[in-house]
Amino acid sequence: MRLTKRLAVGVALSIFSYQLFADTSVVSDEQKATAAQLMESALESDLGFDIVESLTTEIGPRLGGSEAEKRARDWGVKLGKKLGFDKVSIEEFTMPFWDRGHLHISLNTPYQQALYGTALGGAAPSEKSIQTEVVYFRDIHALSEVKPGELAGKIAFVDGDLLVKSQTGAGYGQANQRRRKGWQYAERGNARALVVRSVGSDSRRFPHTGMMSKDGDKWASIPVIAISNPDADHLRRLHNLGKPLSLTLHSESKWKGDVSSGNVILDLVGSEKPEEIVLIGGHLDSWDLGTGAVDDGAGIAITTAAAALISKLPKRPKRTIRVVMFGAEEVGLLGAFAYAKQHEDNLHNHVVATESDFGAQTIWQLVSNVNPEATLLIDEIAKVISPLGIVRGGSDVPGGGPDIIPLVEQGVPTIRLNQNGRDYFDLHHTPDDTLDKIDPDELAQNIAAYAATIYLIADSDVVLKK
Amino acid sequence: MRLTKRLAVGVALSIFSYQLFADTSVVSDEQKATAAQLMESALESDLGFDIVESLTTEIGPRLGGSEAEKRARDWGVKLGKKLGFDKVSIEEFTMPFWDRGHLHISLNTPYQQALYGTALGGAAPSEKSIQTEVVYFRDIHALSEVKPGELAGKIAFVDGDLLVKSQTGAGYGQANQRRRKGWQYAERGNARALVVRSVGSDSRRFPHTGMMSKDGDKWASIPVIAISNPDADHLRRLHNLGKPLSLTLHSESKWKGDVSSGNVILDLVGSEKPEEIVLIGGHLDSWDLGTGAVDDGAGIAITTAAAALISKLPKRPKRTIRVVMFGAEEVGLLGAFAYAKQHEDNLHNHVVATESDFGAQTIWQLVSNVNPEATLLIDEIAKVISPLGIVRGGSDVPGGGPDIIPLVEQGVPTIRLNQNGRDYFDLHHTPDDTLDKIDPDELAQNIAAYAATIYLIADSDVVLKK
Repeated sequence: MRLTKRLAVGVALSIFSYQLFADTSVVSDEQKATAAQLMESALESDLGFDIVESLTTEIGPRLGGSEAEKRARDWGVKLGKKLGFDKVSIEEFTMPFWDRGHLHISLNTPYQQALYGTALGGAAPSEKSIQTEVVYFRDIHALSEVKPGELAGKIAFVDGDLLVKSQTGAGYGQANQRRRKGWQYAERGNARALVVRSVGSDSRRFPHTGMMSKDGDKWASIPVIAISNPDADHLRRLHNLGKPLSLTLHSESKWKGDVSSGNVILDLVGSEKPEEIVLIGGHLDSWDLGTGAVDDGAGIAITTAAAALISKLPKRPKRTIRVVMFGAEEVGLLGAFAYAKQHEDNLHNHVVATESDFGAQTIWQLVSNVNPEATLLIDEIAKVISPLGIVRGGSDVPGGGPDIIPLVEQGVPTIRLNQNGRDYFDLHHTPDDTLDKIDPDELAQNIAAYAATIYLIADSDVVLKK
Repeated sequence: MRLTKRLAVGVALSIFSYQLFADTSVVSDEQKATAAQLMESALESDLGFDIVESLTTEIGPRLGGSEAEKRARDWGVKLGKKLGFDKVSIEEFTMPFWDRGHLHISLNTPYQQALYGTALGGAAPSEKSIQTEVVYFRDIHALSEVKPGELAGKIAFVDGDLLVKSQTGAGYGQANQRRRKGWQYAERGNARALVVRSVGSDSRRFPHTGMMSKDGDKWASIPVIAISNPDADHLRRLHNLGKPLSLTLHSESKWKGDVSSGNVILDLVGSEKPEEIVLIGGHLDSWDLGTGAVDDGAGIAITTAAAALISKLPKRPKRTIRVVMFGAEEVGLLGAFAYAKQHEDNLHNHVVATESDFGAQTIWQLVSNVNPEATLLIDEIAKVISPLGIVRGGSDVPGGGPDIIPLVEQGVPTIRLNQNGRDYFDLHHTPDDTLDKIDPDELAQNIAAYAATIYLIADSDVVLKK
């Protein structure tokens, strides 16, 4: 039993202050009191941490489409039943499977030295070991100017800079272009392989993996390897000394045909409008290097625990609360697109959707993208959760998380409980994404915020659609 | 050119205050002014950082006895000549070479998962891949009670705890027993291999390597593998859930016969008593996983740069200042023992000896182990370097660093400029020991302290021997 006393006291004070003022039009005093009670319960509960501990320990890494991801779905079903959800199911879909395989990458000239690298998602194998000269590019802009055939027989290395730490993750999208699109320029130059400074804000010797983007329907036909920031620093320094560089590289990563994946759906059926769905969730798959604790075991734990706390109330909220444990997010939002497809006839009944997929640090802001009248509801919710240290952000901020993208495209309204992401890009997509990186108190703050917010939307009659 | 203004100002004030008081008996005002000037120069200089950048970049990892360590010796000679040392030489010795080779280690039961492990120095190969049950031991005490033959056919895993962070490194020696001696108990139990929670204060997914201890003349005859703290946490949690564990393990590490290594000796010959030697140094070899920046490129840089600054004075100090870049420290202080042997007839002329081998964070304390009269000299030196934030510690604290042990055994007096080692065991002996972990300002503070301290001892007539 956890007691985060400072927060617990704050919540109690809020309950008291509600009673001094008249009801607002959109949230009743009773609802506010219930929300406050949910927050107190969340802050005292170990449930969220227990969930992410169980997922990371009993399942481990769970790459989209793998046997481990299947075990994770079975785990999700068992968990949902144990926690008393009203309906628990798996919705399967088919996907192409990319396998990392074994990688060897080392500096060959001016001397032998191991490099810490990992293949990027979607990369082709090298077939055999490559040992060849490196052409250095200071950044993606320099690489983008490569002329056809200019890199024939060589390995391109695209440098860049340490990602600047940011509460919001700003900067990641831009830095990530070298991971996403670098291969297209390298292939234009006819390079034998591309090596990329990994996109992370840490100076640990772990590379960050992640998916590349397709060029239309085409994946990379060469190996593409991310190396850690200290390794990239090393190559840069050698390059700046005027040393000719060569690497040895052998990568077995490849596409392996179609496999099954799936989404796990846990429903708390609404007491008055069961057809109206408030969708929350995280993604069940992880990259294979770590055990997927902050990305996204935390999101699974936060949203499942929040709903489970709501399920203990004497009465179900009016609307259905649905937790979706999305499959195969990392490898292209495949579960998210499958969900949107499988539920396309019912998306008009999705009242709002939001995902927790930015780590496990505290939530600091609530943003929304709903109609103007419903914005008042979100404003009220922001006041209710403010004792958790959460401020109200913009009311026209699009996006509810990666797996919500296909729903947004179909007009589903969104909110987002923004987490502090300052340390997220130290860990995500690396072997270091393990349970020890999660602070149980910070996780509990997330659950408190989700429980109160989702309860208040699910128990409301306000229409959120624009 | 660096300017650490706060420190620089402190030093300037000290010079002024000296002039208000009469000379002490052991350090003249002129010497104090020279020492202060050395400190100012050190704080403004990039020389130290340039040295460690060059060593880690141009040589890279340099395991004792390897071809890379030979390149490092040549680098040391070239550096010594360039910096204007009066005598530069290599003193070779022969040593047995242990090679890490390739390692595969993964969880096999209850499911497949890569583990982040590395062989411990001196470990035997597995010959072929081992796949077998794990017997869990909570700590080295539990393992030490194993009965003969009890572990036949199995892998022993000895857990422990995250090393507590400490300014002084206290706790490392005790925690390190599982690395040093665990194999003896595992062999008594007839285990096929031993896996050890690596001895580090970090929760990064890097294992710490390091040498095991011999049992008399005998090295381990089984593979011994350290796994990272998060991996050890994982095995512990699975064990606590009552899950039977099995591992797959294949290690190629082995002894490979005798090779050459050597110490690099850089002398500034004394102007009045050239036969008297003030010995400082670090170790030139590193573990092979990182690039040996904090362990011990920093020590090489600190002591070489300090002596190089002294060499720029108009006149050499009275006594000879000798920088020793010891070879093969990590694999058993082999360079240190070779030095003591090769100079055994001249150790009575070694006035004092000290090594920098505890990272690159700031120095906070000066301790000594010299005769009572000479203690007054060290007290005076402590006052001179106090503007650097350094306090005077004990005057009967034995030890001048690992490579000084064989000299201490022969009665050579020691001092030690103690560094803050709080973060040292996050990095040492891991792949993460790279240049980016060194703060140039903290390194410069070290050089300032060494330059002033060593100058004042070398320019003194005080006998330090007990």
